Amino acid sequence: MTPLIHDQFLLESPVAQRLYHEHAAGQPIIDYHCHLSPAEVAQDKRWRTITEIWLGGDHYKWRALRALGVPENLITGDADDWDKFAAFASAMPKLLRNPLYHWSHLELARYFGVSDVLLSADTAQQVYDRCNAAITAPNFSARQILANWKVEMVGTTDDPVDSLEHHRTIAADASVTTKVLPTWRPDKALWIDDPDTFLPWLNDLATAADHDLGTLDDLLAALRKRHDYFAAHGCQLSDRGLARIYADDFTHSDAARTYELGREGKPLDPAAANRYRSLVLHELAVMDAEKGWTMQMHIGAQRNNNSRMFAALGRDTGYDSMGDLPLAADLAKHFDRLDQIERLPKTIVYNLNPRDNAMIATLLGNFHQAGVPGKMQFGSGWWFLDQLDGMQAQLEALSQMGVLSQFVGMLTDSRSFLSYTRHEYFRRLLCNILGDDVNRGRLPNDFALIGNLVEDICYRNAKRYFGF
Amino acid sequence: MTPLIHDQFLLESPVAQRLYHEHAAGQPIIDYHCHLSPAEVAQDKRWRTITEIWLGGDHYKWRALRALGVPENLITGDADDWDKFAAFASAMPKLLRNPLYHWSHLELARYFGVSDVLLSADTAQQVYDRCNAAITAPNFSARQILANWKVEMVGTTDDPVDSLEHHRTIAADASVTTKVLPTWRPDKALWIDDPDTFLPWLNDLATAADHDLGTLDDLLAALRKRHDYFAAHGCQLSDRGLARIYADDFTHSDAARTYELGREGKPLDPAAANRYRSLVLHELAVMDAEKGWTMQMHIGAQRNNNSRMFAALGRDTGYDSMGDLPLAADLAKHFDRLDQIERLPKTIVYNLNPRDNAMIATLLGNFHQAGVPGKMQFGSGWWFLDQLDGMQAQLEALSQMGVLSQFVGMLTDSRSFLSYTRHEYFRRLLCNILGDDVNRGRLPNDFALIGNLVEDICYRNAKRYFGF
Amino acid sequence: MTPLIHDQFLLESPVAQRLYHEHAAGQPIIDYHCHLSPAEVAQDKRWRTITEIWLGGDHYKWRALRALGVPENLITGDADDWDKFAAFASAMPKLLRNPLYHWSHLELARYFGVSDVLLSADTAQQVYDRCNAAITAPNFSARQILANWKVEMVGTTDDPVDSLEHHRTIAADASVTTKVLPTWRPDKALWIDDPDTFLPWLNDLATAADHDLGTLDDLLAALRKRHDYFAAHGCQLSDRGLARIYADDFTHSDAARTYELGREGKPLDPAAANRYRSLVLHELAVMDAEKGWTMQMHIGAQRNNNSRMFAALGRDTGYDSMGDLPLAADLAKHFDRLDQIERLPKTIVYNLNPRDNAMIATLLGNFHQAGVPGKMQFGSGWWFLDQLDGMQAQLEALSQMGVLSQFVGMLTDSRSFLSYTRHEYFRRLLCNILGDDVNRGRLPNDFALIGNLVEDICYRNAKRYFGF
Repeated sequence: MTPLIHDQFLLESPVAQRLYHEHAAGQPIIDYHCHLSPAEVAQDKRWRTITEIWLGGDHYKWRALRALGVPENLITGDADDWDKFAAFASAMPKLLRNPLYHWSHLELARYFGVSDVLLSADTAQQVYDRCNAAITAPNFSARQILANWKVEMVGTTDDPVDSLEHHRTIAADASVTTKVLPTWRPDKALWIDDPDTFLPWLNDLATAADHDLGTLDDLLAALRKRHDYFAAHGCQLSDRGLARIYADDFTHSDAARTYELGREGKPLDPAAANRYRSLVLHELAVMDAEKGWTMQMHIGAQRNNNSRMFAALGRDTGYDSMGDLPLAADLAKHFDRLDQIERLPKTIVYNLNPRDNAMIATLLGNFHQAGVPGKMQFGSGWWFLDQLDGMQAQLEALSQMGVLSQFVGMLTDSRSFLSYTRHEYFRRLLCNILGDDVNRGRLPNDFALIGNLVEDICYRNAKRYFGF
Repeated sequence: MTPLIHDQFLLESPVAQRLYHEHAAGQPIIDYHCHLSPAEVAQDKRWRTITEIWLGGDHYKWRALRALGVPENLITGDADDWDKFAAFASAMPKLLRNPLYHWSHLELARYFGVSDVLLSADTAQQVYDRCNAAITAPNFSARQILANWKVEMVGTTDDPVDSLEHHRTIAADASVTTKVLPTWRPDKALWIDDPDTFLPWLNDLATAADHDLGTLDDLLAALRKRHDYFAAHGCQLSDRGLARIYADDFTHSDAARTYELGREGKPLDPAAANRYRSLVLHELAVMDAEKGWTMQMHIGAQRNNNSRMFAALGRDTGYDSMGDLPLAADLAKHFDRLDQIERLPKTIVYNLNPRDNAMIATLLGNFHQAGVPGKMQFGSGWWFLDQLDGMQAQLEALSQMGVLSQFVGMLTDSRSFLSYTRHEYFRRLLCNILGDDVNRGRLPNDFALIGNLVEDICYRNAKRYFGF
Repeated sequence: MTPLIHDQFLLESPVAQRLYHEHAAGQPIIDYHCHLSPAEVAQDKRWRTITEIWLGGDHYKWRALRALGVPENLITGDADDWDKFAAFASAMPKLLRNPLYHWSHLELARYFGVSDVLLSADTAQQVYDRCNAAITAPNFSARQILANWKVEMVGTTDDPVDSLEHHRTIAADASVTTKVLPTWRPDKALWIDDPDTFLPWLNDLATAADHDLGTLDDLLAALRKRHDYFAAHGCQLSDRGLARIYADDFTHSDAARTYELGREGKPLDPAAANRYRSLVLHELAVMDAEKGWTMQMHIGAQRNNNSRMFAALGRDTGYDSMGDLPLAADLAKHFDRLDQIERLPKTIVYNLNPRDNAMIATLLGNFHQAGVPGKMQFGSGWWFLDQLDGMQAQLEALSQMGVLSQFVGMLTDSRSFLSYTRHEYFRRLLCNILGDDVNRGRLPNDFALIGNLVEDICYRNAKRYFGF
């Protein structure tokens, strides 16, 4: 039996194979958005077992196990490492066609050298032993993984109140060959109607910014101080996660009153809260534009759907899914308001519900700027779409409704050091799609032309666009 | 010319062919949701012509004929059987690429042995004659058709007021080899603002349940009595058809007032009616959960669009189409409210607008339960999606965003005894998709592994999940 | 290197090639909806450079250049013809996979005979020179282009206030072999809340119709006079562009009051404005039905998203994109209200957001009419969807959810005389899709049957449906 993972995995034609091996495989990685822990890079983290690094924080795998009826004890509970690994190994044959089937085997092959067997209950013990042996090798550490994958830059995701101490530690250490830069993610400034989160966060912000927060002006000034602080630590990207876009008409005085109620933990009129959010979202974008940063927007998730499990496990534990709200009018209004005052930053929109791909791709085309090629980016397939079909749909929408050649390409958006295979996966898929087009006569049979496109998307566009 | 329907129809590779013939073709059928008439099984119905059985109740065919401008007289009117058949035969060459082209020819081949000619005006007479001859064969009866197709179980669709007398007749007859079980479909309990339907239905319910219906508590008690009655007749599934999901906040007292207005036929505040519906939908799900039933939800249809034809022909005559309302927030809220009190039943959601496939597939993943593999099911392509593209889109969404291996598979959802070919069609398509993946190296080239998956989806999952 | 454009471009199998060359390529063209200037046909327009004819009015190309950061001066500004052409030529290699890559090269090949080189900075000068030489040929004029492409009919797009003088000129000139007929596009009658447009338009209408416009009855009477006038000039189609469908309940008296406020330029209650629009949209459809016209609806655009560029360049300059509003309920209500009074015209719906294809295709199926085959048409891929993926998605939705055989087929919807290649492109794609189906055994291997379908869709259906 041919192994699942081999040199030509996903590369279905000689053209695709040549494009990948000559133009894609060797490119460095710019992982401009992820959720890696800067502390783990700073301390050059090592792991005790494959369970810790592979299953410990991966809510994709958790969801799949729950769909199979596996008890939570073997997923996020206190079962031991072997039992958890064995549970996942036993589940693997039931995950055929799920993206985890490819991802898991690609990770086993690339990080642990296990590509000769498929994971299952039968092979669990040998795979566990081989992977745990691999983990003991000297080059199996956070920093070494980044170096092995030629990761030039990592963009972590950080709250404005974060001290960025680990980023400083890393920057001061000349032996780290990867730039690890913070990303400004000020979501909590919008959570005005969730006092349990908002009020403690305001306290942290007051401390971090050394600024009183009595008024909306104070809040904006404190955020601006922290924005400067992030910039001083090399930050060049921001991010926000938004179930919907807040682009209502607002006035400063109205939003200021709402803020004052919110900071007292009082109940808010939902419409007033949305006007407050609209103002803050606008001001945050203005800050990004004025520093030349790139603003990332992750839109369209419907989060924390399961109240029982939210109470038990908290956020980001595998109980989120796609929303289906109208987005187009508000998204255009948000951008237009910024564009009118020449404060629309470079922007990347990541869309969660694939039914909106075409709308997003066309909407972004309304807001480009002379001298800034590819200013408005339709981001790569995100979360549930970070898999073969999702990536392909994003590439098709971007190609047909936008300009593929300017695409800044793949990112991991991952909490795991084992996710750099996603760049490989993306590159293979990209080359396969382009190879198919060449074979069908839909693209010119010109390797210089197409190879150049591959290199741009895999590496050079990001380097140019972000200016790392 | 190769016949359209042959042994390898839809099976485009040797791998697909082997998967189908070795693992799919021989599986029994569990047709857990359809609209077959239990009376026709009880009486072992026979048919006078192919027109009666093939064109008599099939609103798919009616719609296609109307699109071609055929007069209603030849569709649902009083034209004679031959004229109606001839009209459909003449239409057939104009239905290339419509699902009816495949379905009709597959039905002609499998039920009537006609696979050597394509249906058209030219072949109408000979096909009519051959089919009518086939109908006279001894084994061409309702029960024999079920036996011939190895249908182990049929789930009919029944109103709570139904006496289930035909189900009793069938159950008492040891010669019937197919279990014919009722499905609880209490939609009319929600139709509080349609007094012409609601009030007569209340009368029927009062009689069937032998229960006064003066109050909301009475209504719920009467429904519960009938729910018990259905359970005593072997019912293990419920169903509801919903254009949108009713998941508003409700109180019992408010809903009780609304019910009392509704049973007097008084005009209702639409928001109050929706709160009433939200309560009833919740209570109905609680009943299902407490009995261990599976709750089916058919969501997203926009029904009865054509007032003139509704007045002439009534419901379910081919004037329905897809809605485009937001569903995600309410669907999650409905499930979450049930989950919080540990009363979320096993659930199958059938989605009508394919743009919502990904949302549905991811949303269901928030509500699984330890010990119940595949508890939340994304149902097979339904109605307009019950065709090649629609089935494939459902399989892809389920594969990429859920867990295909737990899928309970195909159902006919049909009023016709001629629809068992849909199981064959689905199985061919499934094997073709999996074969394609194997050929492209996206799935392991392992017949035991993939063949097992095929058998699970075609038969074993449904048997395990429903517990028939 | 094989040229990109050659005889078998897009035709991936011998079956596809035979279908195209024997059944599609030679068909005349009925271009029933476009934005060609009747004045340019009347004067038999010639062009000074390829820049003028190719880049002068094409907001698709403008958008692509803006996405690449090209300054507006080289797009719509006052740069000279060569500089603009050179800018576009340099952009071309960056537009791989964008529809412009195919369209541009197909246009260069078919209109200018340039198919041996790909356009780029390197080839810009030679392509410019060769194209400009071609433009000087005697047969390179507006009328000759129509004749060369065997365009039997052109449907222009015209405001009710238009004098149609150019249509008269053309009709009076026996040397013009193409029928150039007006299309009634009364959008501005709906723009009651935009006094800067509405009030001058009312003045023009009063003059054109020679009718006072003091009341809503006056407005409707004046429109009806102009409708008659258009009919006298051969008009057989209407059109409207709608971001959403206006199908609110209305009364004549309420709408009359709203009209009177609107014609005084007073601010309007948005709900009242929508009720006014609902009435006018209904009355306009009644007029079309009573004349046996075909009503076209272009739905789902979100226009003028960029305020700065709207102020600089105005409408239709490349700042529009897809909307994402619910449409199904209102669209059905609009049709149903007309159908109830037997005033639903033949209708073509062009849908912009592809996520709504399936909904549209099924919704239209509710409103067919005996004796009018294919009465309700799902129009060909429009605007952003007028490309390979978009056309294919429309054909698939129409095939699976409607009746492909009745499809009136392709139209250019273009402002350019260079767009007749779109018919060629569509025909190649159609034949490729059908050829693929035949090769896979999904359609009968019967050239007479499939060839007939091709000819119907390419030409005969439109001729029959519109009755030109």
